Amino acid sequence: MAFRSLITGIGGFAGSHLAEALLEAGDIVEGTRSPRGSLANIRHLTDRVAAHRCDIRSPSETADVIRRCRPDVVYHLAGITNVPESEADPRGVLETNFLGTLNLLEAMRREAPGGLFVFISSSEVYGRVLPGDNPVCEDHPMAPVHVYGLSKFVAELLVEIYQKTRGLGVLRLRPFNHIGPRQSDRFVCSSFARQVARIDQGMQEPVIRVGDLTPVRDFTDVRDMVRAYRLAAERCAPGSLYQIASGKGVPIASVLEGVLSLTDIPIEVREDPSRLRKSDIPVLFGDSTRFSQATGWRPSFPLPESLRDIFRFWKKQIAEQGGS
Amino acid sequence: MAFRSLITGIGGFAGSHLAEALLEAGDIVEGTRSPRGSLANIRHLTDRVAAHRCDIRSPSETADVIRRCRPDVVYHLAGITNVPESEADPRGVLETNFLGTLNLLEAMRREAPGGLFVFISSSEVYGRVLPGDNPVCEDHPMAPVHVYGLSKFVAELLVEIYQKTRGLGVLRLRPFNHIGPRQSDRFVCSSFARQVARIDQGMQEPVIRVGDLTPVRDFTDVRDMVRAYRLAAERCAPGSLYQIASGKGVPIASVLEGVLSLTDIPIEVREDPSRLRKSDIPVLFGDSTRFSQATGWRPSFPLPESLRDIFRFWKKQIAEQGGS
Repeated sequence: MAFRSLITGIGGFAGSHLAEALLEAGDIVEGTRSPRGSLANIRHLTDRVAAHRCDIRSPSETADVIRRCRPDVVYHLAGITNVPESEADPRGVLETNFLGTLNLLEAMRREAPGGLFVFISSSEVYGRVLPGDNPVCEDHPMAPVHVYGLSKFVAELLVEIYQKTRGLGVLRLRPFNHIGPRQSDRFVCSSFARQVARIDQGMQEPVIRVGDLTPVRDFTDVRDMVRAYRLAAERCAPGSLYQIASGKGVPIASVLEGVLSLTDIPIEVREDPSRLRKSDIPVLFGDSTRFSQATGWRPSFPLPESLRDIFRFWKKQIAEQGGS
Repeated sequence: MAFRSLITGIGGFAGSHLAEALLEAGDIVEGTRSPRGSLANIRHLTDRVAAHRCDIRSPSETADVIRRCRPDVVYHLAGITNVPESEADPRGVLETNFLGTLNLLEAMRREAPGGLFVFISSSEVYGRVLPGDNPVCEDHPMAPVHVYGLSKFVAELLVEIYQKTRGLGVLRLRPFNHIGPRQSDRFVCSSFARQVARIDQGMQEPVIRVGDLTPVRDFTDVRDMVRAYRLAAERCAPGSLYQIASGKGVPIASVLEGVLSLTDIPIEVREDPSRLRKSDIPVLFGDSTRFSQATGWRPSFPLPESLRDIFRFWKKQIAEQGGS
């Protein structure tokens, strides 16, 4: 089954990987990209996907894109994803993540009422989770502890209201952490891999700067994650809600160890106070039994393979751009 | 204890009554009024309160008011309160009720960090309530069924995050339906009372148009309600959350009966299809045991007295304005 698909945030980390997965599945792929966003992640796809400039915060620009594309499926990935950035600009993140979702829902209702709206939420909606609550499942109470988690939670509620009272076809997916090539180094795996790649290339003294290594998180390769989104659109009942996770809790210290093993150079690990964002949630990992039962999905990339590919990505970036 | 107080939405129904209650308690009272709003409700108070023009959707206008007033207590009442209006303009209600609350929280954090922020939420946050769930208490799960309820729910969450992560002093209050003189006739008690007042004055044929009479709701006189807000600011621990309700479930049919008894003229009751907004919630009434224990509050106006005062209000309005 091939879909006419629209990916919001197609130029982003997950968006660009999703574009590749959809093309491989035979879908027609269009997308929106932020007026300020880079096209670097999808430069290799420019002859196969149309990336429309669209500020998701604008109701009229959003409606225009939906009217032009008339998609069967919208994968809504556009948004601010970084937690510290969200804390610094609560208004910006709520306008983008929450009102942006409203703009899309309204546009779908008017211009593509028969389409399916796949909302990509986040495991950050759970907020406070006690170590003994893991693995977390879909029914866990939601108590977001920062504005980013709140923005995703309230957008989920809005999506649900549009399904129940406006009859829109929707899915809500809650991915846990996903990692892979092209992710910004404001995220931990990319930060470690980029530093080690720079050290490996002799561009940085052999010291890696790290934050808190004790939190335990759930990592899935982005390529497995976007495959899950496509499977969801094909196989999940409209109105349903699933989380997507590896099911394994991995300490950040193990990620560091995995990345350090990618080079033979001995590297000193140094705590960087500026990276020590205090986490209220020591342990968070998920359970995607329900999603696997509904779709047959299983993650296929083991963590070391993901870390190796992220490391290679940064080595290539450094070779091309000089590693600045 | 006297407070330097700011009421957002001071020109509104509850806002104007709160202004009177605070003045009576000896507080200094200022307020914000919408640039589009009427001053009719506070005309009698103009020499005792300052009503600043302020569009709550504007971060800078909101910050200006907080900077100028430096209030000890902000009672945040400004917002769109009508459910059908909210359904017709989801963006408008979310910008006003949700982002407006964000603007105030940010302004308080910067300009009046020692002040208390009293957020007036709504019993509509509960959404789907089964008849057997009544009386509802504070712990009832929240599942709003329309955009108005959602806007109040998500604003509550934002207020909680500002308390927990920014250390702001906040209270969240969830009033059930409140009624009284000055309420718009888009609300049921006012609608009935205004029609009967017009009939009583010979300005309308003796037919009253009604919607669904079966829902059961919880009515408190607005004068009792605003007294509760002032008591809360004085006596509740910062960070706490209370609902405020009469504790009694009253069928809309009983309200109609009470209003019809205010005139001797025999009146035909006629169903008006345009008023038959289907309610998903047949029965909703609250329990304010916790609030009464914390503050000593008890409602003092019996329903017939409230209805009589609303009826008198409309008779006076009609006499002054010709009842159009």
